[in-house]
Amino acid sequence: MEKLLLLLDRYYEEMVSIRRYLHANPELSFQEVHTPQYIANFHREIGLEVREGVGGRGVVATLRGAKPGKTVALRADFDALPIQEENDIPYKSKVDGVMHACGHDGHTATLLILAKALYEMREEISGNIVFIHQFAEEVLPGGAKPMIEDGCLDGVDVIFGTHLWAPTPLGEIHVKSGAIMAAPDMFEVTIHGKGGHGAEPHNAIDSIVLGAQYVSQLQTIISRRISPLKQAVITVGQFEAGKAYNIISEKATLKGTVRTLDEEVRNQIEKELESLLKAICDGANATYEFKYTRGYPAVVNHPDETAFLADIAKAISEVNQVKECEPLMVGEDFAYYLQKVPGTFFITGAKHPDWETAYPHHHPKFNFDERAMLIAAKTMGLATLSYLENRK
Amino acid sequence: MEKLLLLLDRYYEEMVSIRRYLHANPELSFQEVHTPQYIANFHREIGLEVREGVGGRGVVATLRGAKPGKTVALRADFDALPIQEENDIPYKSKVDGVMHACGHDGHTATLLILAKALYEMREEISGNIVFIHQFAEEVLPGGAKPMIEDGCLDGVDVIFGTHLWAPTPLGEIHVKSGAIMAAPDMFEVTIHGKGGHGAEPHNAIDSIVLGAQYVSQLQTIISRRISPLKQAVITVGQFEAGKAYNIISEKATLKGTVRTLDEEVRNQIEKELESLLKAICDGANATYEFKYTRGYPAVVNHPDETAFLADIAKAISEVNQVKECEPLMVGEDFAYYLQKVPGTFFITGAKHPDWETAYPHHHPKFNFDERAMLIAAKTMGLATLSYLENRK
Amino acid sequence: MEKLLLLLDRYYEEMVSIRRYLHANPELSFQEVHTPQYIANFHREIGLEVREGVGGRGVVATLRGAKPGKTVALRADFDALPIQEENDIPYKSKVDGVMHACGHDGHTATLLILAKALYEMREEISGNIVFIHQFAEEVLPGGAKPMIEDGCLDGVDVIFGTHLWAPTPLGEIHVKSGAIMAAPDMFEVTIHGKGGHGAEPHNAIDSIVLGAQYVSQLQTIISRRISPLKQAVITVGQFEAGKAYNIISEKATLKGTVRTLDEEVRNQIEKELESLLKAICDGANATYEFKYTRGYPAVVNHPDETAFLADIAKAISEVNQVKECEPLMVGEDFAYYLQKVPGTFFITGAKHPDWETAYPHHHPKFNFDERAMLIAAKTMGLATLSYLENRK
Amino acid sequence: MEKLLLLLDRYYEEMVSIRRYLHANPELSFQEVHTPQYIANFHREIGLEVREGVGGRGVVATLRGAKPGKTVALRADFDALPIQEENDIPYKSKVDGVMHACGHDGHTATLLILAKALYEMREEISGNIVFIHQFAEEVLPGGAKPMIEDGCLDGVDVIFGTHLWAPTPLGEIHVKSGAIMAAPDMFEVTIHGKGGHGAEPHNAIDSIVLGAQYVSQLQTIISRRISPLKQAVITVGQFEAGKAYNIISEKATLKGTVRTLDEEVRNQIEKELESLLKAICDGANATYEFKYTRGYPAVVNHPDETAFLADIAKAISEVNQVKECEPLMVGEDFAYYLQKVPGTFFITGAKHPDWETAYPHHHPKFNFDERAMLIAAKTMGLATLSYLENRK
Repeated sequence: MEKLLLLLDRYYEEMVSIRRYLHANPELSFQEVHTPQYIANFHREIGLEVREGVGGRGVVATLRGAKPGKTVALRADFDALPIQEENDIPYKSKVDGVMHACGHDGHTATLLILAKALYEMREEISGNIVFIHQFAEEVLPGGAKPMIEDGCLDGVDVIFGTHLWAPTPLGEIHVKSGAIMAAPDMFEVTIHGKGGHGAEPHNAIDSIVLGAQYVSQLQTIISRRISPLKQAVITVGQFEAGKAYNIISEKATLKGTVRTLDEEVRNQIEKELESLLKAICDGANATYEFKYTRGYPAVVNHPDETAFLADIAKAISEVNQVKECEPLMVGEDFAYYLQKVPGTFFITGAKHPDWETAYPHHHPKFNFDERAMLIAAKTMGLATLSYLENRK
Repeated sequence: MEKLLLLLDRYYEEMVSIRRYLHANPELSFQEVHTPQYIANFHREIGLEVREGVGGRGVVATLRGAKPGKTVALRADFDALPIQEENDIPYKSKVDGVMHACGHDGHTATLLILAKALYEMREEISGNIVFIHQFAEEVLPGGAKPMIEDGCLDGVDVIFGTHLWAPTPLGEIHVKSGAIMAAPDMFEVTIHGKGGHGAEPHNAIDSIVLGAQYVSQLQTIISRRISPLKQAVITVGQFEAGKAYNIISEKATLKGTVRTLDEEVRNQIEKELESLLKAICDGANATYEFKYTRGYPAVVNHPDETAFLADIAKAISEVNQVKECEPLMVGEDFAYYLQKVPGTFFITGAKHPDWETAYPHHHPKFNFDERAMLIAAKTMGLATLSYLENRK
Repeated sequence: MEKLLLLLDRYYEEMVSIRRYLHANPELSFQEVHTPQYIANFHREIGLEVREGVGGRGVVATLRGAKPGKTVALRADFDALPIQEENDIPYKSKVDGVMHACGHDGHTATLLILAKALYEMREEISGNIVFIHQFAEEVLPGGAKPMIEDGCLDGVDVIFGTHLWAPTPLGEIHVKSGAIMAAPDMFEVTIHGKGGHGAEPHNAIDSIVLGAQYVSQLQTIISRRISPLKQAVITVGQFEAGKAYNIISEKATLKGTVRTLDEEVRNQIEKELESLLKAICDGANATYEFKYTRGYPAVVNHPDETAFLADIAKAISEVNQVKECEPLMVGEDFAYYLQKVPGTFFITGAKHPDWETAYPHHHPKFNFDERAMLIAAKTMGLATLSYLENRK
Repeated sequence: MEKLLLLLDRYYEEMVSIRRYLHANPELSFQEVHTPQYIANFHREIGLEVREGVGGRGVVATLRGAKPGKTVALRADFDALPIQEENDIPYKSKVDGVMHACGHDGHTATLLILAKALYEMREEISGNIVFIHQFAEEVLPGGAKPMIEDGCLDGVDVIFGTHLWAPTPLGEIHVKSGAIMAAPDMFEVTIHGKGGHGAEPHNAIDSIVLGAQYVSQLQTIISRRISPLKQAVITVGQFEAGKAYNIISEKATLKGTVRTLDEEVRNQIEKELESLLKAICDGANATYEFKYTRGYPAVVNHPDETAFLADIAKAISEVNQVKECEPLMVGEDFAYYLQKVPGTFFITGAKHPDWETAYPHHHPKFNFDERAMLIAAKTMGLATLSYLENRK
């Protein structure tokens, strides 16, 4: 164990330089070409078995320990975002309008160096370690699903993953049993009334009035129809209707998002959103279109693996605090891995102590304290070794 | 009286050709140049006194009867609309994107030929007749107000005006004591909440939810706060908010129209629209902008002059029916004349008997049965002569 | 004509004493016994043909003029209200909890004395006059309908009726062509949700929330679904739900009234009230009961008879002003007579000049200026004679 | 430890008979006389120090161990409910309309026998045990507060309490770190509009329409203004307005409950309920009364003591399952003890294995499996001994 920590400390500078290289050379989701090549080459040079093009653009590297045992998977995503970087840093993105503004560069660097360190310890390892480098986390339908379908979890007993999190202070590890990240869905509604002269409402069916009723009434889904003990959000982010102030608009278009932590609640909200809409339109002889697009499911951590990881994290000297966090209402396709195998996804604090507040993820000035990568690597590395050791 | 009818019959073809000339050569509101010149020339050639540039672009021609008496004003508007004509007629608009789609060409032709006929009868006339040719009826603030300020009603005892009305069958004259046309106002509301992440409503102030409440609650102004015996409409024609489905919109913008027939109701609605808005925003720590733009006031006909005109109209052979109509919820700046002097504004049916339905006013295929002009001329002409005769 | 006016002046004191006798001896709707006997006796003593028990408790007296001609009907209602009189007057109601608080005592006295006066002129009369004394105007289904079914309008060519109106100054007669009084209907709604613990809304269906939505949404029937030119009111007067602050109420009961002036609007509102309710309940898996009880139809005056009566009224010296009024949003079963024969129902001002405001009808201190009876008698009397004379 | 379990097993029959005696002789909150005497006598007979009339009607008994140490408090409440028992059992309530329908009889019996058993072990005990017998848990302001003010927690280091819970199967212990029971508050709103005739809404201010808007809008407090990660409920349980279907109601009265688990959310909801109300009334020139009555605060368990108790419970053979439960949205004045000293309140499953569903608490047929008392006694007893042993 101690050896791993020393190795990681030793390779930390390389980790930083990998991260900076990736940061300067970002690639958009589903368009990743050089990044997976870079990753594959790195693993091959270390000496791992590498499979490329997994599920499309993913890379899976496998480390076989000297002794037989269980198989642990570790995952890092590597796609970037369509954002123009506004940081003034030496390793600023060289690609116009594309930026690693969510820390995936750090995830990748963490995993690569962790692989290098673990490979040096392979003689002591009982079991296998699978490094899953996932493309396209940021864009639906995501890379996790096709990679799983292409076998990346075959033979895997447990999986760990983390997100470097800029709003959380460096030195904190946040864990949560159960849902830690939400299922972020999208809905789009068009209400078709009947257009008409603004002075003749009785000859028209006013889509704006119906849209307004819908916005008001759907509040009751959260306030009355979902258990107060369940967490969910429905937000209408867009309401577009009408082209002239004095003409009754034929149609109103509303778009919104739904965030849930529970599949049953998710199903119920989808159903209720439509049945309320139907009722309002029926009551006014209007018609509607309703489209509900599911994002990733909620990331639901397994209790035992979460408790296990929390205990591991407490043992790392750079970790000041391991605490149970509230769920984050954002999505992650790590969800799919946890539907297949046990495991846990945790948050690694990455806010530099000097920053009062960090720029949020997806911001043109987003950055993180690179030392968080080391903490992430140590936590996942120890968890891996400890898991394999305990279950050998 | 009989003589006037014969003269108008005789000049009907000229009336049609004037109308068609004007139709082919339309000019937009506040941009009229040739039309007022044409009108002024016509009156001068007949022999009337002409004042040009009245209130800006208006023309006022005065016919002085041989004997002293009262003064009657007759009004026709002459501006056109920013519409691309789609009629396939020999006298189709020659000006791209500009069209006489509201019958003002007909109003003008009617008045010119009526002046010509009356001038021939000047020896028998006791009093004066003022022909008010008004510019810019279609666009706020309208031409009526500046023409009045420039003296077009000075010395006038009574005023008559009509609108050729394509949806009403030829042969019908519609009159109404009291309000015959509405005050059409415009309001624009911006609600400023606080933008935020779609998953964090508690850190935002959702302008769409507030806008929806506003649309729902302002229905009660009509349903509960205005006397059920008063007529009024409030229509929200536009609702625009949000740029992304998953972001809580900082602001919502609503635009609408208010139609009233009564100044007190109009004032009340303006006040209530803002006080409801204020209450909703106050209740949510949001702020707002509220802009209420008044259109023309309601056209309120004087009862005696209306009854008088109705009786006159019944005597004209081409008129099958004189009936009291319901108010039209559109605006007309004839309203301003009636605030100064007694008079009445009436509707002259202009739907061709062969048309099942007419294209509505302001439609690219709008047209009217030109014989309505003759009926309008006879009605206004007889009203004028009768009025002067009775009060000499 | 002059003779009638003189006779009525002469009998005015008797008219007052009859009214006061009736006032002191009121009888509730559908319980009238002595009043119809009194009326029948009076007519018989004069010398008229009398039919009692018409349609139940009505009295019809017929005056046959010496010469043949048309038949005019005049109607007065004679029932009182379940109100404890609070006036301190010599002729105060002797019946506990029952009071002539709507002027029907005056209507009856007016008609009786008018009959007496007209009988003295029977030699000069060409045609017949039918005096319809109606029971039960105040309580559904009213006395008019059964009296009509029992033949009270047989052979009648025209009918006149009036209401003494305390809020309108003495000396004014108000007429209105078309609807002068509303159709006052009643509706009763019960929404059945599902009761439950106040802390577990997701296991219940909250009938109060649904009821609240219904109240809000039905505002749009007036504001959006009825023409702004049509007059109508929907008022929810009662909302009852729940027995404990912390239990979700299984049901909510709402009661309200609808006032309309137009049968088509009335039908539409009944339909829309239910379809909105259905939609709201459908959208929430709730059920409902909906009961719509029609009151009297609107009192729709015939235009010619209204104009005729207005002209007559102008000729009476005690009448200062005959004016067209706005509709009253209350009901009257005079409506049924006007569905069968032409005629008009008018308002006779009865506010004493010394009163700043009169107590409203149905108030325990209601009273009226008795001279209004004389005006009513003269107006109806002259209208009757003039009608018969013109059409003989 | 083992000894305690054996003693409790031995005294189980006495425990049952005490419970049945108390069940048959219930006393209402704030009216307890015999029950505290009975309790005091019991403790005195055992040999404990007893203080009566604590905070009014409470009893506190203290067991001093032979050796010095910490002080553990255990609490049981002893008041009954104003419910007419409908069980057909030998120990049915002898008091008309009063019943132990919430298990407080069981709580008391559990604590008395536990005291007896522990007293026999006093030689082995390092520290003190305080038995808090609380009056008036069911009725605000509760007995906990005055007992604390009267010193019942003086010198206490930790407190444990439990609720026998009929809906939860026998053999289960439910624990929860953080809020396990809600703060149940009450609010009462009266909206004063202006009464009026149902046909004249413009002369009135319709309190029912405003009340309906309030019900609809307050949904947004839950749906938009509270973090989706926080649990809260607002239920309007009563809506009373209006006395006649055709009269606009001057006032509407609404009553409801608020359940929260977090003091900040509680404060926010109280504030928002009033500010929304104020806004709605301001927007309509109405006025209001708003009364918010706080129930007990949320019962917030301390994490360490909760984890400690959970571990203890797992060691008891009758306990099949110890699990983390969701919060219960009901109130308990155990909350006050936990605001002063560390501790935990847990749920002891009490549903008989043969019952498909148990009658809910406060039901006239409520009962519980008495073996749950033994489990509760063992859990609290072991927790007490273990705590004192570990910290001596």
